[in-house]
Amino acid sequence: MDGPDIHLLAAGTHLPGPALDTATLVRRFDLPAVWEQWIDTYVGTQSRHFCVDIDTGEVRQTLADMGEAAAVRAMSAAGVRAEDVDLIVMGTATPDQLMPATVNRIAERLGIDRVPSYQLQSGCTGAVQALSVAHRMLRSGPERNALVLGAETSAKFFDPAADIRDRPPAEQINGLLFGDGAGALVLSKEPGPASAVLRDVHVELVGLGREPGQILDWYGRTTGERRGMPVAEDYKAIEETVPKLATQTFERMLERLDWDETDLDYLLPPQLSGRMTQRITEGLDAPGAHEISCVAETGNTGNALPFFQVERLLPRMAPGDRALAVSVESSKWIQAGFALEKPVTPTPSRTEASE
Amino acid sequence: MDGPDIHLLAAGTHLPGPALDTATLVRRFDLPAVWEQWIDTYVGTQSRHFCVDIDTGEVRQTLADMGEAAAVRAMSAAGVRAEDVDLIVMGTATPDQLMPATVNRIAERLGIDRVPSYQLQSGCTGAVQALSVAHRMLRSGPERNALVLGAETSAKFFDPAADIRDRPPAEQINGLLFGDGAGALVLSKEPGPASAVLRDVHVELVGLGREPGQILDWYGRTTGERRGMPVAEDYKAIEETVPKLATQTFERMLERLDWDETDLDYLLPPQLSGRMTQRITEGLDAPGAHEISCVAETGNTGNALPFFQVERLLPRMAPGDRALAVSVESSKWIQAGFALEKPVTPTPSRTEASE
Repeated sequence: MDGPDIHLLAAGTHLPGPALDTATLVRRFDLPAVWEQWIDTYVGTQSRHFCVDIDTGEVRQTLADMGEAAAVRAMSAAGVRAEDVDLIVMGTATPDQLMPATVNRIAERLGIDRVPSYQLQSGCTGAVQALSVAHRMLRSGPERNALVLGAETSAKFFDPAADIRDRPPAEQINGLLFGDGAGALVLSKEPGPASAVLRDVHVELVGLGREPGQILDWYGRTTGERRGMPVAEDYKAIEETVPKLATQTFERMLERLDWDETDLDYLLPPQLSGRMTQRITEGLDAPGAHEISCVAETGNTGNALPFFQVERLLPRMAPGDRALAVSVESSKWIQAGFALEKPVTPTPSRTEASE
Repeated sequence: MDGPDIHLLAAGTHLPGPALDTATLVRRFDLPAVWEQWIDTYVGTQSRHFCVDIDTGEVRQTLADMGEAAAVRAMSAAGVRAEDVDLIVMGTATPDQLMPATVNRIAERLGIDRVPSYQLQSGCTGAVQALSVAHRMLRSGPERNALVLGAETSAKFFDPAADIRDRPPAEQINGLLFGDGAGALVLSKEPGPASAVLRDVHVELVGLGREPGQILDWYGRTTGERRGMPVAEDYKAIEETVPKLATQTFERMLERLDWDETDLDYLLPPQLSGRMTQRITEGLDAPGAHEISCVAETGNTGNALPFFQVERLLPRMAPGDRALAVSVESSKWIQAGFALEKPVTPTPSRTEASE
């Protein structure tokens, strides 16, 4: 692909509310105490954060609130001001409203204006899709710096009065798998003191002939009936298909990059749950790579999640280190990923360069 | 901007159900008969199509149905098969579901797979945003052909039992302003027998300090209350701001293109309503340009609308002709547009070229 190198300057994230451990949720929703052990053993997610108060249902933080907080951190870590941002792209499955797009509300709060703005509607690969749009645009256009966001909120779906005791286990597990959060990255055509080069971003729809593994619906009006969360999940399909697609993406990306699996220093696997991540990682042949995972502490934060991984990764990368991230969207099946490499020759910081 | 010329090969559109004239809607919703004249005089929208049966509320066509139909026409007109499509991008404010993204359901129906896929959440400029993503990606990446969609459905919001007689006039007018529909374009790195070059696509968020002119919300669950369409519209702000932003976009694009307003053969103005389009067009200084509008017959079809204009434009363009389209998103204010130019030297058709 043509165009200049694009540098990842910094990442920032935000988690709403306190960490909620599994025991707390099991008590709150009156589930059998044995759930706590099951979740621990078979799911492997220990805590998560919600943007609603689980006792009252009160929305404490919106998607815009979380996205703004993550962006402020990423921009501050990157040393980039609102007027330096030339492009803003966000991925989410759960926008605050259909119109305006939440990304535009976040832009206003940050003071970002007169720039191209995009919000991608997607499941778990939305953050990578947003990253790919920003990457391609920076490579082909005049923009210098991009702010990329991935965020997810359960606020519109949370029902404090719901009694889930008699619901199917799959539905009960869902409430323990997911969490809310937001992540942000700053990309630039100029390197920064702690930056890594974004070598490749891959997005590939592979939904043909595969039934959706997840459906998340919405209502445009309410008719007087009481209806719960319009969600359907084929957990078995997800369990079977995600590891396969993850392996396929991993191999395809190494080939695109002309990297060998032994070159990899860090692996950022899909974060469906602690246990499933473990199984996926076992299927990826990266013998010397350190795994960067966060799902056990954050839960599956959907489109925010890859940026939580990047935030953990960046400070650990040494010159010459290579990292590969894999993400899978299980609603209509998208496989995606991105590759980062820390330059061998330390790049001068932007302040030094301008002196 | 670097990269090869991108050619617009063909457009295709789809309108659901029969054309509904204003008199029919006025009768159906029991509005005063004088509405018909008001709409005719002050709004200027004569007919529109809905994806629901207005008597029963039955959904006759989904967003995926409409998008598929428009895409089939555009691909057929372009002579492009599913396996030739390397990229698919869609803009909509009203996806069928939050997950999967509707674009991926459409891709499957068309047989499109193993390609990057993106769905943009936006108000009226979403189709132009989708066009800009496809344009930039084609210019900077290996993909050769892109399918770009813009579509809108009111299905989730339509309430056959709603009594709107006592609602504020602005809300009543809304039901007469909008319509459902879908449009699709095929872009390519190779010219076709009837193609025009996509010279520029412009997307610029200008929301800082401007309150949203429109809000469209959604519900994640229903609580047993009966609630109507979660929509708010500041018609006055729209009336004041859209013409200003349209003029600003028009001037900015001519400058970017280094085109003179006398160079323009066709103008595709924003299509909020027949009358407002007239007012906007009067503010755009394009003395020799023919206006391409469709809103009087289709209603405001949101993200589908610019592609309805393109479908009307393409067969009229003669070699050397230049066209400029302007679009304004009034929820959090995005100004956007695109420019097309028909090559002076007729490009050989792809069939001829390969002989």
